[in-house]
Amino acid sequence: MKFTCNKSDMNEAINIVLKAVPGKTTMPILECVVIQALEEELKLTTNDMSLGIETRITAHVEEEGIILVNAKMISDIIRKLPDQEIFFEADDKENILLFCGKAKFNLSGKNHEEFPMLPEIEKTKKITVSQFTLREMIQQTIFSISNNENNKILTGELFEIHGDEFQIASLDLHRVSIRKMQLKESYDDIKVVIPGKTLSEVSKILTGGIEDEVEIYFSKNHVLFEFAKTIIISRLIEGNFYNINQMLSNDYETKVNVNRKELLACIDRATLLLREAENKPVIINIKNNEIKLEMNTKIGSMDENINITKEGKDLRIAFDPKFIIDVLRVIDEEEINLYLFNAKAPCFIRDDQSYIYLILPVNLIEN
Amino acid sequence: MKFTCNKSDMNEAINIVLKAVPGKTTMPILECVVIQALEEELKLTTNDMSLGIETRITAHVEEEGIILVNAKMISDIIRKLPDQEIFFEADDKENILLFCGKAKFNLSGKNHEEFPMLPEIEKTKKITVSQFTLREMIQQTIFSISNNENNKILTGELFEIHGDEFQIASLDLHRVSIRKMQLKESYDDIKVVIPGKTLSEVSKILTGGIEDEVEIYFSKNHVLFEFAKTIIISRLIEGNFYNINQMLSNDYETKVNVNRKELLACIDRATLLLREAENKPVIINIKNNEIKLEMNTKIGSMDENINITKEGKDLRIAFDPKFIIDVLRVIDEEEINLYLFNAKAPCFIRDDQSYIYLILPVNLIEN
Repeated sequence: MKFTCNKSDMNEAINIVLKAVPGKTTMPILECVVIQALEEELKLTTNDMSLGIETRITAHVEEEGIILVNAKMISDIIRKLPDQEIFFEADDKENILLFCGKAKFNLSGKNHEEFPMLPEIEKTKKITVSQFTLREMIQQTIFSISNNENNKILTGELFEIHGDEFQIASLDLHRVSIRKMQLKESYDDIKVVIPGKTLSEVSKILTGGIEDEVEIYFSKNHVLFEFAKTIIISRLIEGNFYNINQMLSNDYETKVNVNRKELLACIDRATLLLREAENKPVIINIKNNEIKLEMNTKIGSMDENINITKEGKDLRIAFDPKFIIDVLRVIDEEEINLYLFNAKAPCFIRDDQSYIYLILPVNLIEN
Repeated sequence: MKFTCNKSDMNEAINIVLKAVPGKTTMPILECVVIQALEEELKLTTNDMSLGIETRITAHVEEEGIILVNAKMISDIIRKLPDQEIFFEADDKENILLFCGKAKFNLSGKNHEEFPMLPEIEKTKKITVSQFTLREMIQQTIFSISNNENNKILTGELFEIHGDEFQIASLDLHRVSIRKMQLKESYDDIKVVIPGKTLSEVSKILTGGIEDEVEIYFSKNHVLFEFAKTIIISRLIEGNFYNINQMLSNDYETKVNVNRKELLACIDRATLLLREAENKPVIINIKNNEIKLEMNTKIGSMDENINITKEGKDLRIAFDPKFIIDVLRVIDEEEINLYLFNAKAPCFIRDDQSYIYLILPVNLIEN
């Protein structure tokens, strides 16, 4: 194998495929990247057995071939090479020669035949969305996936397509996050659960803007994201997701309209009184046209008032501050609406079109 | 006690004194900051028993007084307050009330009488240097202090004043770093060893430019740095420092003039072949008008040539790459000179005026 490629192209490609290289593994071969020199292009592949990535770059290929090499090592080396052409050469014994500028490296590759290449995915069912939108939707919901591996289904996010409606949802035992968008065209119904780890990596690799598209293909056991010169393949999580619709409600007893940043800054300040693993709720006291936020901990107490617009009854309710902060951070709007029933019922933060967040309150033990 | 102060002044002051708050300690009182409200100013003090910091800010003091409060906590709170005036109030029972904007905090202070206040230092012997220069000199030498507490003297740096010559030196078992400067006036001879930890914090707090000065006072057991509204007091390390002069030499058999950045980038690339704790030397093969750098490790090998100007004999010598990198990173000059004898004698990197770095080679075991 012999090829010459551009340093920054190669660097970028390796950074993409590194996302599917496991940090710790009992199978050292998964720490490698497959570099295939094809006609006028290179194909880089990594696979951690649940997530696989393949990306292509153009290169001047003198002799086709395939090598397998430690991904972290080759990435470190390439990053620190001078900004010049890189010349790769490999023989049949997995000896790799790499030239760049005046630097010459001799490296040992591994036997590529042992590497688990990516499965072929049937490309029948697909949708097309904007890279920017998908990235946003993932980031706006992924914080409420569960990390409890004993309840595997909750470590993923539910992707649902119904006609031209596309919805992503995640939930743990305390909250539900839902983001919705309208697709440009209608598709057959799809309902799959994609691992949170996959989506987290997808959201990091998807750097495109609102006009750049990503195709998402769904097969029985896999999902495939395809964009620019990259594909990401992931296993789906098997099983039935919780019935989210039955948790939702459009009724309310109290509706509060509040400035998002002001509420966020205020709850953020309240959490300053939490030391280490202390787990105290923030009390939201809705009265007339004000929220009085209160926090009491071992260290001390704080309170702060925020002006609001209110419909309905006054209410005193308590939440884990982290859950509210998570939601307020991923909403773009200046003003938000909270919908509440009573101190024991969930609070909804939602607009009509694009998002619904449900947060369970914590028990308010009055002193 | 009652006072009002500006949020960003207070924030800046607390960040300065935080540098003398120990991360872990068996004496929780040392995690606190003393806040004294004096006539029209606040004095903040921290002390970890070997390093103490005091800084002042202007404030509107309604009632003088003194409080002791957890430094990390108050720093976190102040940082997240809105950018407005902060109002502090404390009663005799160490209850602290803090208002800022609409936020109100109730905090518990501690009994300030238990806090070890800073010792009075006799201000007789002193020198004056530029903040910028002192910061640079510390950063250019501190990397070669030893972290072996069993040989305490080497965990500090030697400060030597002789007439108008000011020199800072540090050494571990493999290298010596010396920086020199000429003072504006002459002083009596001074020779003290200052803990590396102190100097590291001093270099972080000294943000002044070349025109801003710092006064350094020396007493029998302490050193005191005074600048702007801050003083830093540190214990000195007792004992005699090694005789550095007898390690130095101006002779050489080989003199190499080389581009600093080129050599640095090249050694940096060679270290890419080192995995984890692997400890392989970089071989510097000086021949005619080139250095050929070589590195051989478990993973592979690399070599790279650099053009040089040479006086004297050819030489093949090996070093721990980290030691050379440390030195090359803190030199500002474009071109540097290496002075060498043979493969077993130290290499000197020095100019005539301001610096001398000595690095011991490692044994070259030829394969």
